[in-house]
Amino acid sequence: MAGLLRPATWGLFSWRGYCSRGTQGRLSAGFVEALKAVVGSPHVSTAAAVREQHGHDESMHRCQPPDAVVWPQDAEQVGRLAALCYGQGVPIIPFGTGTGLEGGVCAVQGGVCINLTRMDRILELNPEDFSVVVEPGVTRKALNTHLRDRGLWFPVDPGADASLCGMAATGASGTNSVRYGTMRDNVLNLEVVLPSGQRLHTAGRGRRFRKSAAGYNLTGLFVGSEGTLGLITAATLRLHPVPEATVAATCAFPTVQAAVDSTVHILQAAVPVARIEFLDEVMMDACNRHSKLNCCVAPTLFLEFHGSEQALAEQVQRTEEIIRHNGGSHFSWAKEAEERSRLWAARHNAWYASLALRPGCKGKLRLRDGADTCMREAELPEPICSLGPLPSGHTGRGGIAYGAATTQGYSTDVCVPISRLPEILVQTKEDLEAWRLTGTIVGHVGDGNFHCILLVDPEDPEELLRVQAFAEQLGRRALALHGTCTGEHGIGLGKRQLLLEEVGAVGMQTMRQLKATLDPRGLMNPGKVL
Amino acid sequence: MAGLLRPATWGLFSWRGYCSRGTQGRLSAGFVEALKAVVGSPHVSTAAAVREQHGHDESMHRCQPPDAVVWPQDAEQVGRLAALCYGQGVPIIPFGTGTGLEGGVCAVQGGVCINLTRMDRILELNPEDFSVVVEPGVTRKALNTHLRDRGLWFPVDPGADASLCGMAATGASGTNSVRYGTMRDNVLNLEVVLPSGQRLHTAGRGRRFRKSAAGYNLTGLFVGSEGTLGLITAATLRLHPVPEATVAATCAFPTVQAAVDSTVHILQAAVPVARIEFLDEVMMDACNRHSKLNCCVAPTLFLEFHGSEQALAEQVQRTEEIIRHNGGSHFSWAKEAEERSRLWAARHNAWYASLALRPGCKGKLRLRDGADTCMREAELPEPICSLGPLPSGHTGRGGIAYGAATTQGYSTDVCVPISRLPEILVQTKEDLEAWRLTGTIVGHVGDGNFHCILLVDPEDPEELLRVQAFAEQLGRRALALHGTCTGEHGIGLGKRQLLLEEVGAVGMQTMRQLKATLDPRGLMNPGKVL
Repeated sequence: MAGLLRPATWGLFSWRGYCSRGTQGRLSAGFVEALKAVVGSPHVSTAAAVREQHGHDESMHRCQPPDAVVWPQDAEQVGRLAALCYGQGVPIIPFGTGTGLEGGVCAVQGGVCINLTRMDRILELNPEDFSVVVEPGVTRKALNTHLRDRGLWFPVDPGADASLCGMAATGASGTNSVRYGTMRDNVLNLEVVLPSGQRLHTAGRGRRFRKSAAGYNLTGLFVGSEGTLGLITAATLRLHPVPEATVAATCAFPTVQAAVDSTVHILQAAVPVARIEFLDEVMMDACNRHSKLNCCVAPTLFLEFHGSEQALAEQVQRTEEIIRHNGGSHFSWAKEAEERSRLWAARHNAWYASLALRPGCKGKLRLRDGADTCMREAELPEPICSLGPLPSGHTGRGGIAYGAATTQGYSTDVCVPISRLPEILVQTKEDLEAWRLTGTIVGHVGDGNFHCILLVDPEDPEELLRVQAFAEQLGRRALALHGTCTGEHGIGLGKRQLLLEEVGAVGMQTMRQLKATLDPRGLMNPGKVL
Repeated sequence: MAGLLRPATWGLFSWRGYCSRGTQGRLSAGFVEALKAVVGSPHVSTAAAVREQHGHDESMHRCQPPDAVVWPQDAEQVGRLAALCYGQGVPIIPFGTGTGLEGGVCAVQGGVCINLTRMDRILELNPEDFSVVVEPGVTRKALNTHLRDRGLWFPVDPGADASLCGMAATGASGTNSVRYGTMRDNVLNLEVVLPSGQRLHTAGRGRRFRKSAAGYNLTGLFVGSEGTLGLITAATLRLHPVPEATVAATCAFPTVQAAVDSTVHILQAAVPVARIEFLDEVMMDACNRHSKLNCCVAPTLFLEFHGSEQALAEQVQRTEEIIRHNGGSHFSWAKEAEERSRLWAARHNAWYASLALRPGCKGKLRLRDGADTCMREAELPEPICSLGPLPSGHTGRGGIAYGAATTQGYSTDVCVPISRLPEILVQTKEDLEAWRLTGTIVGHVGDGNFHCILLVDPEDPEELLRVQAFAEQLGRRALALHGTCTGEHGIGLGKRQLLLEEVGAVGMQTMRQLKATLDPRGLMNPGKVL
């Protein structure tokens, strides 16, 4: 275990804002002028504050600012920027909402950060074909607001109000994936600016068919490539009909095994459950304390069903039967939006409840505009989830500073075949104890994907090392059980060694070959994934 | 239009069995001995009959036999064969059941055909995780027979009893895809022997998680690559629970538009329809004549619903409401297997009914073992569909020779956004007339994918040219409507020009780069896709 205590792949954490890099970028004045010539002066910045704001995401990876930040307004400008940077050997880092969790935007070699948020048009909506084309600045919530009156929605929900193209780049998923699939299943086409500046339409320009067998699946190759192969400048997405009605349910179990068995049986019975989320008893206890609830302190499932009134009644009944058969109890369900919200309160507040496990008095909350706000815990705005990724309990917005120290959450992200969940969850709890760490567990159990939310004092290097060692051990446990080190957060900076162990030497070699083919100079978001 | 009359990309058709190539392969005796050293003498053949049997698939592409056929027994042998061939500059052609429709197995440059059908073990079944690992010789029907008592099934159904790894290689889909997705959605992992002989596990060795964000999606890259990047030697597939009950339904419409509108409305209402198939009035007329039925000669939908008894009742009721609202009539439904079969008889026999549009008296039916059988039409064994790909009306087994001439079916395969279906169907019917061709239309309308089954006398070069011109025109019509030239059959030999038009120069360049990276000598199934 001693070997694990190297500060190996993660780099040393430091609280963002205290970057060691100076404020001078390394780009020549002439190059910066060239950038301005492409996008206009107001859309280029080399200011230290701006660069630092773009040097980190929501993870604890050390802030590594780019040398300049540019805001293109269209794909043509992105192409010219890419060609300019690539020609000059300058690294290119795509930036969306900065809500990633694996350091995907850290400018490890400096370079130009291309912030795509000002390209935020919904370019085309085809309700009859269940498809929409969005620019990279469009977030999932903005899209769903736009769709509200159309009877359609985009279901992939990673928690954060991330940009849809960023979600495509990361291969995001979230709570709805058990029924609606991940980004991999819901991206029909991508417009990608290649490092050369050429524009690629992965399924062909303007194409928006539901299926195809035409040539290599380029769309699939770019989804999840984390900005290392090109810049996504538009995405054609598959939409789904808004369900006629929704029912939420919760229930408690005597053991993790009973909760997982229920999940398997629900899936085997072909109940089309829309969400099936697991919270462990530590998480439930934290939720009770934090949100003044009175839930059972036991392994708990949170479920949601979508369908017609009649279909829902049957789904709920079957689910309840299965749950009771597996020893579940305290089965509650709710139909109206407000009731559902109340029933799912513990799940919605899981992230903050986890953080509150470290007692303190003051909270520091980072808001959407990047500013930090200081407030007492009691002053946290409601609903908290409107601020960031809280609904599905991912890490993200909202490191809460307690007194002098700053407690941050770190989220693991392994995914295993569902039958192996009980053993890995038991092992994880033992590991938490062995590594003297505080952590809660919340999982997309229908997919076999779960997060252990660890509470970390980033000022304590020894604790950071224990967190790192724990996370690597958990990753390896998942690999030993036929799983993956990341179900939805991506590889980024921190999991490159685990990726090698996951896909093996030939897999890694193949990925490196693909990278070298599409980015021969290694300038597209360097240092990530591989 | 004159320009279309070149025998451009298809090569000239000729009825298989009359290959122009001699019986002597071009491989040295020493090389053949080396092949035998790998797999054993009984598993290598250079006999003309065997080579010719492996030089074509179910399409009308000219037979182009390999120089030798080998039957490896495991992936290790496949790796040694690949390394041997690649080292000597000998083309490698993977071969499954030979039920492809785009000439994917034609040995355009000769070489060694690697027949994978003797690797036919089901390696691992994990019912709780809804996954199975199969070798390339396992067909979809064999898998579903194996699964029968487990409450699980594999729903992708391209018609033919194809090998599952072949289906992965082609990116196959079929009638169930509207609900269960295509091969792209149902392959979790692939074992691939690369041209070098190295073994790649696209998601990592032994991994069988439902989702992952770990590195580039290599699985997605190999699904649909048509054997041009490597040989698939095992596939991990996602299984689905067998539905509790099944209901089939049919109904007739006054217009194509009404049938498509109904489909859109059914999907918008989130009715989880399992199959929704369209047959045009020519097809229905042919079915009536061929199978002595009395169906409405009108655009017709064939539907199937999967679910609980209670859910099905509601689905059928909603569907009927939608259909009646759109002017549909003659709504019939059936629950018991026999009744369903009767109701769907027209759909099941669509392929033979189409062929029967050219009157004749004698039939020649190619059976599973490759032998040809002569019989009168009336002697065709029942159920016909057990012989091949007939249930979903694809081309395939069963060219029927009428008297001296041999009539074959050729199936187009475009896919468009569903809202564009009515116009392309109307255009297609006009084109049939303009090109003086006989054809029926059958489609997976929920996906926007349809096939025009053309009846061709392969002895008539002028008619062949008209068929070719018609098919290319149809492909271009689909492209103009944001569609694809192939929804599920693949590019193979015949659609390479259309692929270029579909994905554009940058898309083609990117695909070529990927090919050159993974197959630098261009020996993996050469001449296909690119």
